[in-house]
Amino acid sequence: MEPSSGSRDAGPVVMPVAAVLPAGGSGERLGGATPKQFCAVQGRPLVSYTVRAMERISWISDIIVVVSPENIETMKSIIEKYGHRRVMIVKGGVTRHRSIFNGLKVFAENEFSNHLLQKPEVVIIHDAVRPFVEEDILSKVVMAAKEHGAAGAIRPLVSTVIASAADGCLDHSLERARYRASEMPQAFLFDVIYEAYQQCTDYDLDYGTECLHLALKYCKTNAKLVEGTTDLWKVTYKRDLYAAESIIKDNLSQQVCVITDVKEALAQVGFLLHESLKSQIKVEAISVSLSKNDSQLQITFSEQCYNFVCVNDKKYAIQETQQLVDMLEKSDIPLLYPVVLILVHLDISENISFSIGMEELTRIKKFAREVKKKNILVYGLLIQYK
Amino acid sequence: MEPSSGSRDAGPVVMPVAAVLPAGGSGERLGGATPKQFCAVQGRPLVSYTVRAMERISWISDIIVVVSPENIETMKSIIEKYGHRRVMIVKGGVTRHRSIFNGLKVFAENEFSNHLLQKPEVVIIHDAVRPFVEEDILSKVVMAAKEHGAAGAIRPLVSTVIASAADGCLDHSLERARYRASEMPQAFLFDVIYEAYQQCTDYDLDYGTECLHLALKYCKTNAKLVEGTTDLWKVTYKRDLYAAESIIKDNLSQQVCVITDVKEALAQVGFLLHESLKSQIKVEAISVSLSKNDSQLQITFSEQCYNFVCVNDKKYAIQETQQLVDMLEKSDIPLLYPVVLILVHLDISENISFSIGMEELTRIKKFAREVKKKNILVYGLLIQYK
Repeated sequence: MEPSSGSRDAGPVVMPVAAVLPAGGSGERLGGATPKQFCAVQGRPLVSYTVRAMERISWISDIIVVVSPENIETMKSIIEKYGHRRVMIVKGGVTRHRSIFNGLKVFAENEFSNHLLQKPEVVIIHDAVRPFVEEDILSKVVMAAKEHGAAGAIRPLVSTVIASAADGCLDHSLERARYRASEMPQAFLFDVIYEAYQQCTDYDLDYGTECLHLALKYCKTNAKLVEGTTDLWKVTYKRDLYAAESIIKDNLSQQVCVITDVKEALAQVGFLLHESLKSQIKVEAISVSLSKNDSQLQITFSEQCYNFVCVNDKKYAIQETQQLVDMLEKSDIPLLYPVVLILVHLDISENISFSIGMEELTRIKKFAREVKKKNILVYGLLIQYK
Repeated sequence: MEPSSGSRDAGPVVMPVAAVLPAGGSGERLGGATPKQFCAVQGRPLVSYTVRAMERISWISDIIVVVSPENIETMKSIIEKYGHRRVMIVKGGVTRHRSIFNGLKVFAENEFSNHLLQKPEVVIIHDAVRPFVEEDILSKVVMAAKEHGAAGAIRPLVSTVIASAADGCLDHSLERARYRASEMPQAFLFDVIYEAYQQCTDYDLDYGTECLHLALKYCKTNAKLVEGTTDLWKVTYKRDLYAAESIIKDNLSQQVCVITDVKEALAQVGFLLHESLKSQIKVEAISVSLSKNDSQLQITFSEQCYNFVCVNDKKYAIQETQQLVDMLEKSDIPLLYPVVLILVHLDISENISFSIGMEELTRIKKFAREVKKKNILVYGLLIQYK
């Protein structure tokens, strides 16, 4: 993946924005029985990664996932299992365009939905099988759509495109530099794309593939094209699932959760650690009360984090660590990697002392040996300062 | 990957055929310092897999690998290390077309090569970064090239292709069904493609990308387009390396080598086993004398096979198995998987007896325990028959 430059480039998005994720595909090209959006990658359905990518972005108010009728229950259970928020499931149509149209209707037509949602100014359309979408490109297409009425991510062509003649021979090849692959996300002024879908023919709804084309044809809106990064690619074939799995593993191994107790001094240390680490790895810093089963911690576990730094000021807080280990075990994450738990003990007392009681040390060692059997590696770090 | 239907479809190839593999790319799109064709996948450079895919096909006489001057030594060492045969290295030009042209010259112009090779009737052009090419598609494009003068593999487009206007907005989108992605392999009557390269302009050599286009433009040859399988895809981005790695691992885990002694009865058992297994997994059956370091066995090991069935008629041939284990260890394959060694002992004697001496059994068990530490799992199977 090319490095993302963060959301600074396109500036903050301040208008009402919603997202529609067509997820009704049958996954024929993948050659498996399970539609690709529901294929498990590291034990979690692909669509859940895409939904997560969307819900992480605070300025997206509603996420509409459009699935075929037979998958509505599956999708419901995914939303429940992974604690997705701001998500509504809509029943898809027989083609991609009909599914997207159904998704848009929840903002405009009460009859198609029990809950008519607030109409967004701009709507993002994104494939459920493109899980690696970043805030940067979403914000760029949204801002471009606000200005131009429509916008879409593009990528250079990987292969030369050719036209074949009726006899199965080469007719001509396209000059590669003049053309681009149209990718997702795309974004539209809601009124533009909704108008286009209302106007377009059954032929368009049944055989068309390109939303940008509909906006151009029915609303005379020339979409702004935005150069995207390589990670926008669509999971199409089995090899793409392999690639997705490796990318997700890579991301996970570079992800650290810094846990501090809610007490002020500790929370501050956690924040400083977060700031100094975040240029190199993906860090999430949370302040929770370790003594109870915190829901924020549960969510972090279900996000499949494998590296934790726990900052505490109790001497060798074995009991709390034990609770953390218990929660990790209950969270049911696939333990493909060892979970690394670094316990940082901040000794802020006046009396600096390097002596550790033998009994204490034996307890810690025994604890580390025990949890190692569960593929959890515990390391301790003692920081003393006045 | 879609299942390949084997080479039966296109029939055997009986004319002189050579292959040119341009491998001079700089791998910019991969975002790494190493050109993608030299990136290690399971410890072995990608180009080596592609060369192997070619040299496995008996009717390809010469394989020309065209590399940039700075990579000639690297390529030489790859050929030596992996025991590639029928391969010649040629110095590439500054563009892909110039490299291919250089590759073709070794069949036609003595001045560009110390060893002028026999001119093939048909030449295959294939990318070094498409390692999963099968005999079926190669044979199809070769036969089509013989008939039409030129032929190339195509695939359906994954994304819609659009043309952008000068202002960076959508000009129009192409009707996806009318177009195809041009992939590799391609094949040409040698005289057609060589003539095209001799005729074409410097602009074509510097900026063109499509060999089929040159054959059409300069030799009025409309290439026959042959629908290829998904596994023809080109390793372009880092995610493609991930995918390639997973596919190679998958293939390895489904690959079995049946080893029999050269004695007639055993070789026949090996052949029967091969026949009955090959519909389900990839089987290579070899008859070698296990008592000496056979070069055919060495090659099998260097192909990274992880599953072996050894058929012998000596009772518990521990000594020979020990030799096999020694050879495996020396072969230096990356032991990511356990190597599985199934020893089949055929007892063809008249006196059927199920009694195994305790001493013998203890020796076998001890041996299995020992090699298990080296990640080699030994299983024994005794088959008695009259």
